[in-house]
Amino acid sequence: MTLTLVGLGLGAVQDITLRGLKAIQNADVILLEIYTSVLIDTSLEELESFIGKPVRQADRITVEERADEILEEAREKDVALLVAGDPLSATTHCDLCLRAEKAGVKVDVIHNASIINAIGRTGMQLYRFGEVVSIPLFEKNWTPDSFYDKIVKNMKSNLHTLCLLDIKVRERSIENLMANRMIFEPPRFMSVKVAIEQMQQVNDLKQQLPPTTRAIGVARLGSKTAKIVAGTLEQLRDLDFGEPLHSMVICAPQLHDIEEEYFAHYSQK
Amino acid sequence: MTLTLVGLGLGAVQDITLRGLKAIQNADVILLEIYTSVLIDTSLEELESFIGKPVRQADRITVEERADEILEEAREKDVALLVAGDPLSATTHCDLCLRAEKAGVKVDVIHNASIINAIGRTGMQLYRFGEVVSIPLFEKNWTPDSFYDKIVKNMKSNLHTLCLLDIKVRERSIENLMANRMIFEPPRFMSVKVAIEQMQQVNDLKQQLPPTTRAIGVARLGSKTAKIVAGTLEQLRDLDFGEPLHSMVICAPQLHDIEEEYFAHYSQK
Repeated sequence: MTLTLVGLGLGAVQDITLRGLKAIQNADVILLEIYTSVLIDTSLEELESFIGKPVRQADRITVEERADEILEEAREKDVALLVAGDPLSATTHCDLCLRAEKAGVKVDVIHNASIINAIGRTGMQLYRFGEVVSIPLFEKNWTPDSFYDKIVKNMKSNLHTLCLLDIKVRERSIENLMANRMIFEPPRFMSVKVAIEQMQQVNDLKQQLPPTTRAIGVARLGSKTAKIVAGTLEQLRDLDFGEPLHSMVICAPQLHDIEEEYFAHYSQK
Repeated sequence: MTLTLVGLGLGAVQDITLRGLKAIQNADVILLEIYTSVLIDTSLEELESFIGKPVRQADRITVEERADEILEEAREKDVALLVAGDPLSATTHCDLCLRAEKAGVKVDVIHNASIINAIGRTGMQLYRFGEVVSIPLFEKNWTPDSFYDKIVKNMKSNLHTLCLLDIKVRERSIENLMANRMIFEPPRFMSVKVAIEQMQQVNDLKQQLPPTTRAIGVARLGSKTAKIVAGTLEQLRDLDFGEPLHSMVICAPQLHDIEEEYFAHYSQK
């Protein structure tokens, strides 16, 4: 039998590919991975009703710590693991695939759009992006800032940076973790505003990003309520991008002609 | 009316999303862009029979020089422009979108998987890729080598490089171009072998890539006949990856644990 990782694309059921839908319809067990990405335009109930089968939610513990149980199940049955975006954008799913293949379980991967390529909708050219960065939600006494150095490095090479903003779904507090209590915090999604505030907090120390730094904030890309706004970091910080998911591009210092036109197009008049 | 750019994904009709299929079915005019990417698993006839409508092929001249005609048509009718992969991975389509929006034509973009994110199937982590490079087919007296410098730069930052290999479809010879004759050369697709030979030709002068440089050759990604092989540049040069499309990853000098395991997994025993 087969473990099929199915990319759901940008977040609504209509973004599933025909190949993906067929794999889901043929599957005996359907898991929806809910901690590296989330569906933005579709609830679990809508997904279940669309597929016509029950869907089990799979959090970090299920996919990472209990991966063996998934593999065991995939020996006997066709298991589909649904992932918003493209299934192999997260390390954890690459790990799962490899473990499955080593365990002799047949693996199939059905690709789909993800923010990594759909960010082209901002008009910034995909071949001008440097290393992608993830910006983690700062905690008290935990403010890792390697994302900042990577952005600065990309800018020095005149490249754009795609910033993926943190998602915290089904996370436990330190106290609940220590006490081994399965009590989960409410989901948190980093907004463009918080991302910029954290960036400015690091900038106060490192002073490498000029105030003229240009960026593009993106929310709910691919959905009908998508919002794309271009501006300086300061301009974007004060905007409300609304519901998750958000992401952001820090622009290369020099834009090509078409990029410059796009930047103007997405700037607030 | 609307100009909808529909990403077809990795190359077979089953890779279309439900949203994309609906847009195609609703369109009055369907164009298939054939010069920045190509369908690998589906012929034009299969696509037409699947959609149940005629599909017009659109080459560079149609999409770039005669873009106004497309926009004119999109004022009166729903026009779908189908693009293999994701529609905004190529500059030319970003340009078309912008022109349409400026001309007051409504634009919709339906994203899909492309090599930019599906390259995660090699097990190399997407967040460890630097700038993407395009390797052009060398001609007599035309051997542009900026791709080489970018690869070296990525390697120095310990990042992978995705190499997109040249496609020449519906190109005219200089003679036919000068004489304004619409006679087209047969399509040419760069193979992994030719890409490596060109890289080595540049390396003979610049000597920046050590012989131990590791790479992963990829062919027909996402299709049933997909081929992924890892090895040194020399090992891969002597392999036949078969039919197009090919692409390649030049690996970062140090791989993470899972990447190292994937590299071994895809190495020929």
